Amino acid sequence: MFPKSATSRLGPNGDPLWRKDSLDLFGQVEAKGDSELFKSSLECEALDKPVGSNASKPTAKRWEAIFSEEASKRQPSSIKAAARAAAEPGMISLGAGAPSAAYFPFKEVDVKVSNSLNDSVETEASESVLHMAKYDFKAGVNDYGLDVALNYGQGTGSAQMIRFVTEHTELLHDPPYADWGCCLTVGSTAAWDSTLRIFCNKGDYILVENYAFASALETAWPQGIKTLGVEMDEQGMIPSKLDDLLCNWDEQARGARKPFLLYMVPTGQNPTGATQSLARRKAIYCVAQKHNLYIVEDEPYYYLQLPKYRQNQALDSSHVDGLIPSYLSLDMDGRVLRMDSLSKVLSPGVRMGWVTASQQVIEKFVRQNETSSQHPSGFSQVIVFKLLNHHWGHLGFFKWLESIQREYTWRRDVFAKACDKFLPKDFVDWIPTHAGMFQWIEIKWKSHPLYTTGSDHSIIQQSVFDSAIRNKVFVTPGSCFWAENDAVQDRMFFRATFASASKENLTEAARRFAVAIKEEFI
Amino acid sequence: MFPKSATSRLGPNGDPLWRKDSLDLFGQVEAKGDSELFKSSLECEALDKPVGSNASKPTAKRWEAIFSEEASKRQPSSIKAAARAAAEPGMISLGAGAPSAAYFPFKEVDVKVSNSLNDSVETEASESVLHMAKYDFKAGVNDYGLDVALNYGQGTGSAQMIRFVTEHTELLHDPPYADWGCCLTVGSTAAWDSTLRIFCNKGDYILVENYAFASALETAWPQGIKTLGVEMDEQGMIPSKLDDLLCNWDEQARGARKPFLLYMVPTGQNPTGATQSLARRKAIYCVAQKHNLYIVEDEPYYYLQLPKYRQNQALDSSHVDGLIPSYLSLDMDGRVLRMDSLSKVLSPGVRMGWVTASQQVIEKFVRQNETSSQHPSGFSQVIVFKLLNHHWGHLGFFKWLESIQREYTWRRDVFAKACDKFLPKDFVDWIPTHAGMFQWIEIKWKSHPLYTTGSDHSIIQQSVFDSAIRNKVFVTPGSCFWAENDAVQDRMFFRATFASASKENLTEAARRFAVAIKEEFI
Repeated sequence: MFPKSATSRLGPNGDPLWRKDSLDLFGQVEAKGDSELFKSSLECEALDKPVGSNASKPTAKRWEAIFSEEASKRQPSSIKAAARAAAEPGMISLGAGAPSAAYFPFKEVDVKVSNSLNDSVETEASESVLHMAKYDFKAGVNDYGLDVALNYGQGTGSAQMIRFVTEHTELLHDPPYADWGCCLTVGSTAAWDSTLRIFCNKGDYILVENYAFASALETAWPQGIKTLGVEMDEQGMIPSKLDDLLCNWDEQARGARKPFLLYMVPTGQNPTGATQSLARRKAIYCVAQKHNLYIVEDEPYYYLQLPKYRQNQALDSSHVDGLIPSYLSLDMDGRVLRMDSLSKVLSPGVRMGWVTASQQVIEKFVRQNETSSQHPSGFSQVIVFKLLNHHWGHLGFFKWLESIQREYTWRRDVFAKACDKFLPKDFVDWIPTHAGMFQWIEIKWKSHPLYTTGSDHSIIQQSVFDSAIRNKVFVTPGSCFWAENDAVQDRMFFRATFASASKENLTEAARRFAVAIKEEFI
Repeated sequence: MFPKSATSRLGPNGDPLWRKDSLDLFGQVEAKGDSELFKSSLECEALDKPVGSNASKPTAKRWEAIFSEEASKRQPSSIKAAARAAAEPGMISLGAGAPSAAYFPFKEVDVKVSNSLNDSVETEASESVLHMAKYDFKAGVNDYGLDVALNYGQGTGSAQMIRFVTEHTELLHDPPYADWGCCLTVGSTAAWDSTLRIFCNKGDYILVENYAFASALETAWPQGIKTLGVEMDEQGMIPSKLDDLLCNWDEQARGARKPFLLYMVPTGQNPTGATQSLARRKAIYCVAQKHNLYIVEDEPYYYLQLPKYRQNQALDSSHVDGLIPSYLSLDMDGRVLRMDSLSKVLSPGVRMGWVTASQQVIEKFVRQNETSSQHPSGFSQVIVFKLLNHHWGHLGFFKWLESIQREYTWRRDVFAKACDKFLPKDFVDWIPTHAGMFQWIEIKWKSHPLYTTGSDHSIIQQSVFDSAIRNKVFVTPGSCFWAENDAVQDRMFFRATFASASKENLTEAARRFAVAIKEEFI
């Protein structure tokens, strides 16, 4: 799964060839976490150009024309600016109201972690204990002490975590423009809220998949932002439909300017499970260039790419060999904001992810963070840093991701086999998903007895849902994901997730849903 | 410091007399953290009424009339609603996309904590180790497993932490209305951003102290919210000035509706260090009732109340006996939103605090959290819960707060003595602060040589600042805190913090600043 272009750029110690020593920075409270410090550059002899070097790439397009009124008004903190200007050797600062680490009650943290899930969740994985102490940096033990992690930090997040995610992003996506950077987030839910506040004004339309992540829609609507769904197929958004919609945009009729923000979940899309092929991504990127769209790729399931399901194959526990290239990796213009999440691969509770975009856009996230969440929890940052950077390293992280893939592969296979076995194909249709944690199931609702008696979509969906509940299985009605509540719906779907139920329950759930359908249709 | 009314309401085991067993709830992923479950009630025989009982109190005023367009549009998550409706025994859920805890690499966490700072930071405090494991709850070991803490949670934060902060809030503030509640935040910076989005529309004015927390202003301005400074004295905001301003509000001239949101830092105000007396708080609350203002009390320094400074007294390490009553404790109308922070008493890096208000307002915070930060880090929640609830308990937490008070007392004393000794009183004036971490220092700028030659406020402030920097001491210019940038300033101040410099540096910094002043004025 880890691409050759990446492995070839790791040194014997597992670090990227271009990694420099940054210890001084790592010892400072509120040290600046700027990706520029951690990206490869022309100076790095060891790298095979042009892949390896950012300095030789073109620079990103500028986006000030589409920044919101709010984002355009944001200025760097006046106090932080004054303080930075005055940071000299010998200076005594009575400036920042940051408490002394001596007053933190937390002295040491030990975290026992499993190193791999191996091939099955039942297997007891090998374990290690990660140790962190308040003055680790001062003592020269390592490069991230609790004294720094648990104090205030910059809106970028810590330099330590920024170094890791910047290296990870370059190894995996190697954005084809020079001035890209990363900023930590308190999760992609918050990153999406920030994105909307950075780019959109009240009354704007944004473009989304016509079945979209419900929370993403519920974030936009109260801000007075309207969502416009673009038609999808089994590969997600259809480029020609996107182009048609924009070519025929009528400002008068719509009462709003032409949309410029495109939100997608390209891999294992929520709710449809659709995954865009590389060709599909390139086609959509071309449409985005034609209409100068800014693309937001929300990729919580990117690492959960699964081998294609084969009906007659024994339960397999393999993982995919490579990952479909991201929009970020195709982005020669700097028109993509990528949102990465650790929720599905480490745990949702870390409340830490990161965004990657051109530095002009990243600067807006930093400003936004300074007056909202500030940065992820210091406990989350130092524990995840110890795990990813010190303990696993880049390769070890990828091995972990492969073991997570294997888990979701058997889950998908168990559920897909149960669907094959139980669901009545006369009334139900589905395409086994090959990324993420969702199976999208179509109900042929026009064959429902109530349809002939004139009942509408919502009545029939409710009837099927109630039947499922009576049979003690919960699947989410597709209407929860409609990009436009008022659009007339010709098709009916339910979303089932195979993320967390046991093997037995995944099979039993499919059986119960089959019974529910039959009770409705036969 | 811990009020008798509180101690009298703790049982022999140190828990509030009304605490009920909530173990089932605590084992559920995404369990609802509703303060109502954890407040005292009439049923609780052991309590001395009327103090102890919430059910017997009047209910809060309704605030829908001043909710923002955004907040008015916020609806509960459609999926969560559907899922809750279907949560029955025997149900197999293929609904929520929450991963299995089996896939979290984090198995155990041990945190070594100091139990007290004793009287000096140099003293080695006694230590304890707090142990947490993934399946602690399932194993019946205790009531907060990593499996729950590190998965997704509700917008309220975990039921475990909500129980502790709800109890703490009732013990300390006992709000005089019935339907109050708490919601966790990822820190008061984010809570203030949410507050503005919940109450304000673009173009609104809000009321603040005329020297205000810079970050609070910088949060409001980009949202198109204008800040209006109310005159202050050594006790903070002046009630009569607030009343005058509102009585004489001219919508036409101002081009905005009459302000309805009042933001204050009542204790150890940032930047002035001013602390409102009880009488002052009551007077301001009356003005708020007269004009139906909604009050936001931002209290990061509430626990840092210090004994009054006495010039000729030896360095003392005492702590104050009681705490000045909060606005929340006076709030019979439910017109106060209190923001509590752990940043100054545990560590900023926990990125966790809480707000207390009427349930109608709390519901808006929950909605806002669901589509932004969601909730604080699971590591922060479970570690702080273990420390506060299991290890220290309510009394132990207060003992800790007392030891923090002692530390800030000697810091304030050292700096105040140094100011007495060095600063030239002909050109400088100050009132030793008795809460928080800031000393506000006035410069008699009209005695500055440049004033006679016609230089303005900004030129002279810059000249004094530059002189301080030349002498290697950083103090923050008062202009960073102006509530209205365009207001003509008759007085000049600098803010100095005694939060983190060493004893020696606190004294040396005052000496250097004195030299800087003399170089300017003599």
